[in-house]
Amino acid sequence: MSRFWSPEVRELTPYVPGEQPRERLIKLNTNENPYPPAPGVEQALRNYPADHLRLYPDPDATALRDALAKEYGVDTEQVFVGNGSDEVLALAFQAFFRQDKPLLMPSITYSFYPVYCRLYGIKSRTLALDDDWQVPLEAMHTDNGGIIFANPNAPTGHGHGRDAIGRLLERNRDSVVLVDEAYVDFGGESVVPLVARYPNLLVTGTFSKSRSLAGLRLGYAIGSHELIEGLERVKNSFNSYPIDSLAIAAGVAALEDTAHFDACRERVIATRERTRQRMESLGFTVLPSQTNFLLVTHPDFNAGELFVGLRERGILVRHFNTEALQDFLRISMGTDDEMDSLIEALEDLCR
Amino acid sequence: MSRFWSPEVRELTPYVPGEQPRERLIKLNTNENPYPPAPGVEQALRNYPADHLRLYPDPDATALRDALAKEYGVDTEQVFVGNGSDEVLALAFQAFFRQDKPLLMPSITYSFYPVYCRLYGIKSRTLALDDDWQVPLEAMHTDNGGIIFANPNAPTGHGHGRDAIGRLLERNRDSVVLVDEAYVDFGGESVVPLVARYPNLLVTGTFSKSRSLAGLRLGYAIGSHELIEGLERVKNSFNSYPIDSLAIAAGVAALEDTAHFDACRERVIATRERTRQRMESLGFTVLPSQTNFLLVTHPDFNAGELFVGLRERGILVRHFNTEALQDFLRISMGTDDEMDSLIEALEDLCR
Repeated sequence: MSRFWSPEVRELTPYVPGEQPRERLIKLNTNENPYPPAPGVEQALRNYPADHLRLYPDPDATALRDALAKEYGVDTEQVFVGNGSDEVLALAFQAFFRQDKPLLMPSITYSFYPVYCRLYGIKSRTLALDDDWQVPLEAMHTDNGGIIFANPNAPTGHGHGRDAIGRLLERNRDSVVLVDEAYVDFGGESVVPLVARYPNLLVTGTFSKSRSLAGLRLGYAIGSHELIEGLERVKNSFNSYPIDSLAIAAGVAALEDTAHFDACRERVIATRERTRQRMESLGFTVLPSQTNFLLVTHPDFNAGELFVGLRERGILVRHFNTEALQDFLRISMGTDDEMDSLIEALEDLCR
Repeated sequence: MSRFWSPEVRELTPYVPGEQPRERLIKLNTNENPYPPAPGVEQALRNYPADHLRLYPDPDATALRDALAKEYGVDTEQVFVGNGSDEVLALAFQAFFRQDKPLLMPSITYSFYPVYCRLYGIKSRTLALDDDWQVPLEAMHTDNGGIIFANPNAPTGHGHGRDAIGRLLERNRDSVVLVDEAYVDFGGESVVPLVARYPNLLVTGTFSKSRSLAGLRLGYAIGSHELIEGLERVKNSFNSYPIDSLAIAAGVAALEDTAHFDACRERVIATRERTRQRMESLGFTVLPSQTNFLLVTHPDFNAGELFVGLRERGILVRHFNTEALQDFLRISMGTDDEMDSLIEALEDLCR
């Protein structure tokens, strides 16, 4: 605590990301992709003329926005890009959610959302998940200054279908609905096709998971021209050039390789289902997942102790120290070999 | 204007950066370095294992902060890094300047400062430059919620010495003084050595100018542990991983090559003094500069018309359309060949 800090800063409780260990561990704690990015990304790095780095990047990252527009069948003016989807989300909170009425969000979802609320002084109201640990879309039909949820949700893994979210949008016309699709490529159903019908729908995505580019920091939002313009106004009042030239080139290369993209996500999905079966055989309850992670709990073993036991065996998973999640572990999908090591370790720990 | 925007967003007037032209122009408008980054930067790109990009970067960018700490003779815990110094500045405004009392800044300085004030709802008070177009340090000895200025200042080019800023700090102990040293490597005097004495001094810098890495987006701040911790709190409530893995590697490589760094900035300084003389021969008034640009005005020729004439001749400089600066052009230092083309064009236009 320092007397030089702004009063609001004294009250902040920053987000705590999953650990980035320096030791050599099997790293199943931050939902990274176990497979490398598209080979074209490496070529982009090898071929990029280093001399160009003396120049500022294109402030509009047009090449990257064009490529995303093509991928999603929208106009370039419907695409916003940022330094990771965290930055895109932070700018969206500023652009749309500083309202008199509270922002609605599920009680269990990406834990950065309440942090943004505190940082930007946004009122929020959390709604309990339903009995199946699903985002309570029906309960969101209430007066609000905005709605946000991840779909599929994190760290629970369940995703609602497009029709269900369409029904929410049909009844919620006067505030922005932000659907965070960080994990959608692992079996969820994207609501990007609904953007054409609902000018208040903003969909965010990331290159960090399904595109294997967490290290490059690329995220995006897709929405109506007016929502994208709102984001641009905040961005241009914050940082003219958030996306560097290399990230633009690498992101474009990643989007070009649909075969690599499809192959990697199919492998992750196959590993997830294989891991689910094996964990259920060990007595774990495994929540349904359309993501690259599983949220699991065991009736007989304490999750915190399992976390420690796995760590001692060189395997890092995520244990959230909150009341609602303290009985669970969130396990990112690694390679099949890495998951074999996990299962072996759990066989050892759960006997 | 959209009904979905937060009320504050409707009032924003975003910063407008210098144009990034797609045509082939002599580009003297955004203070980029005419020389390439250190050869080690290219090697860092060529050698970086693309597979590592699937993993999140080190959220603390420790390797880069270590290298900056070594460069400046401070602890790693006294160094903060961000996605360009614009991001560092934006986080500093949030961390330190949201106070009851107004932030003091010069009337002419980096025009992003008032934009941050509007974005974050910060009160400010501008102080007129003195008769020599210098930042009025004496006038800043007044009650305030913070002080910010660029040193050397932009777009005027003058820099105060360490002693003068030390006198300000000696009398201003209760609020943060932020000295933006984006241009200091071109002949200014850094106040980083004063950080040890004044816990309220924050110094910001960038890799975009003297390190020829505008395209990579790297900026930093150096200050007391408590100021750096304040920045970290805001950063961790905004974006866990603002600096990508490649930028960390390239930034470290740039810092290692002091010979390249010194050679490039000496060439820029030599070009600046050569250009000054030739412009004065053409009848221009040229403000003193310790930066990589010159602010110039001509008693007989309209700056706006010269801007257009130069553009027609394939040369892009900066003309600020504000009352205080409308008679001036800001000209970034290119290579000597580029500056020869500029002088030729001006000889043609100013006769």
